[in-house]
Amino acid sequence: MPDAQRIQLAHGGGGQLSAELLREVILPALAGPQRPEALTDAAVLDAPPGRLAFTTDSYVVQPLEFPGGDIGKLAVCGTINDLAMAGARPVALSLGLVLEEGLDVELLRRVLCSAGRAAAEAGVPVVTGDTKVVERGALAGMVVNTAGVGAVLPGARLGFDRVRAGDRIVLSGPLGEHGLAVMSCRRGLGFTAELRSDCAALHALVADLLEALGEDVRFLRDPTRGGLAATLVDLAAASGHDVEIDQAAIPVHRTALAAAEMLGLDLLTVANEGKLVAVVAAGAAERAVAALARHPVASRAAVIGTVGGPARPPLVEMLTPLGGRRVVQMPYGEELPRIC
Amino acid sequence: MPDAQRIQLAHGGGGQLSAELLREVILPALAGPQRPEALTDAAVLDAPPGRLAFTTDSYVVQPLEFPGGDIGKLAVCGTINDLAMAGARPVALSLGLVLEEGLDVELLRRVLCSAGRAAAEAGVPVVTGDTKVVERGALAGMVVNTAGVGAVLPGARLGFDRVRAGDRIVLSGPLGEHGLAVMSCRRGLGFTAELRSDCAALHALVADLLEALGEDVRFLRDPTRGGLAATLVDLAAASGHDVEIDQAAIPVHRTALAAAEMLGLDLLTVANEGKLVAVVAAGAAERAVAALARHPVASRAAVIGTVGGPARPPLVEMLTPLGGRRVVQMPYGEELPRIC
Repeated sequence: MPDAQRIQLAHGGGGQLSAELLREVILPALAGPQRPEALTDAAVLDAPPGRLAFTTDSYVVQPLEFPGGDIGKLAVCGTINDLAMAGARPVALSLGLVLEEGLDVELLRRVLCSAGRAAAEAGVPVVTGDTKVVERGALAGMVVNTAGVGAVLPGARLGFDRVRAGDRIVLSGPLGEHGLAVMSCRRGLGFTAELRSDCAALHALVADLLEALGEDVRFLRDPTRGGLAATLVDLAAASGHDVEIDQAAIPVHRTALAAAEMLGLDLLTVANEGKLVAVVAAGAAERAVAALARHPVASRAAVIGTVGGPARPPLVEMLTPLGGRRVVQMPYGEELPRIC
Repeated sequence: MPDAQRIQLAHGGGGQLSAELLREVILPALAGPQRPEALTDAAVLDAPPGRLAFTTDSYVVQPLEFPGGDIGKLAVCGTINDLAMAGARPVALSLGLVLEEGLDVELLRRVLCSAGRAAAEAGVPVVTGDTKVVERGALAGMVVNTAGVGAVLPGARLGFDRVRAGDRIVLSGPLGEHGLAVMSCRRGLGFTAELRSDCAALHALVADLLEALGEDVRFLRDPTRGGLAATLVDLAAASGHDVEIDQAAIPVHRTALAAAEMLGLDLLTVANEGKLVAVVAAGAAERAVAALARHPVASRAAVIGTVGGPARPPLVEMLTPLGGRRVVQMPYGEELPRIC
């Protein structure tokens, strides 16, 4: 695209320019060497046997590139993770782009190459897509949507209904790196050298965890928007059980903690993009930590709490280091808009 | 949502307000009576046997509501149609929303109810979704993304590689109603009483067509962005065959023709959202028309052309009523921005 280094409305029109953008920018970035035909209107796949997982997420993060990631990597990893949390092996992704007229084609290329690298590293191809362009000023930069299909692993029996009193709560690593990296970058704070988004695909961790524990894994979720607080309040409400966590057991990233304090944010409510919460049977917690900690992205996995008895209404409480108890609440809205 | 009739940033934050929007607006509109649990992070489905089709589209149409449809119905029908054109029975849809802060909640509700009705009428549930909110001014109203999975019908063997010289080209009805209805509405032209979007789900037509013709159906596409021109130029380029169509055989919607003339648009390049182009074996064309015409949305189906011999480069030509020949070209860009 030598004479069009900015996106034009016509790139979204379904005509010659759309074809050129697809051929010269999108396909080279996303299509693996063995799939030159990728990104057709509808892809046809061999259906995996058994149950199918299906998910979608839209991404509106600002800025589009941030320490540790960008909107493309985030979209690919986020959808892979939603499939993994359903106990599924991710099979294929779709990628829908809405671009603002005037967007720098080089920025688009970087973001798509990053998405393509993340997909290739995860072994999950992008097989179908769509591109629209809206007029200048109608959108800040770009919106990315990914959807994904996966094959539910035979050993996965996950759900709120499987949670029992005495189950343990495992967290795969420290909180808040994604949200605070994006926010520090946006505000020009000086944390960016040490604080990077934790954005990562977690399907390999989940496969190992299910392999090691089988049905002793009761429930999985990645604490993205709303953070650990939202995940645990949902868990309590949907399972009907109290939940108790121990603040001292939660792994801490020192720079993230400092950034949260400076910004007046509660680490429990900040978004993560490369962490998971697992509820596992009481006797299986140490095996869960061991299975997770073999992966570098979960090297600091820890047991952080316990599922209590049935309660109405169920509460999430955190034991503080000084022996107090604090009720953990669902955040009201969004402390950090456009974080993912 | 009594005291929040406008979308707020916090509705996209993954906290209490997000849960309220989901519970009070999104789920009632989209979830069928038998699926109270719809729209989880990832849905789990029984995998259909055989091959799986997977597709996505983003929708940016302005205005959000137009004669004959709205962005919700359009998104549902468009993704159903992309699956149908791959020869698949649509199984499930995802729906990703990006909303602008300040959006009227009643408008959102109308659009989602329309999407829910279209999904229910088509028998294809929305099973998973996502909602993000961006700040006022960052987006005009809303963007909708749908993805879909489908089960490829056993009798479907479709593809550019199956197209042969002598195959006939069938069009399911007149051109341009969607694009011209939206554009007339946007410009305040007086056609809106007679000109409505043709937005419709076409999977039942495709099922009947495949049932009637089997492998005599070679290729299917819905001529959306870029219109019939883009579909036929793609067909010629990818199959390596010339294509000839007869202008007099193309069914005409008189008001659409008048609107196109007033707006200086070529009906061949205007988007449709409820039409299909089928390439079928020579001897099967009349059966194809008969199978399609049983459906009210395709009552004017007609054989409009023929696939010619192999050629380099292959051309699309249209015979005009006066005996001339016109080369049909791929539109350069977008004559009608934000039409779908």
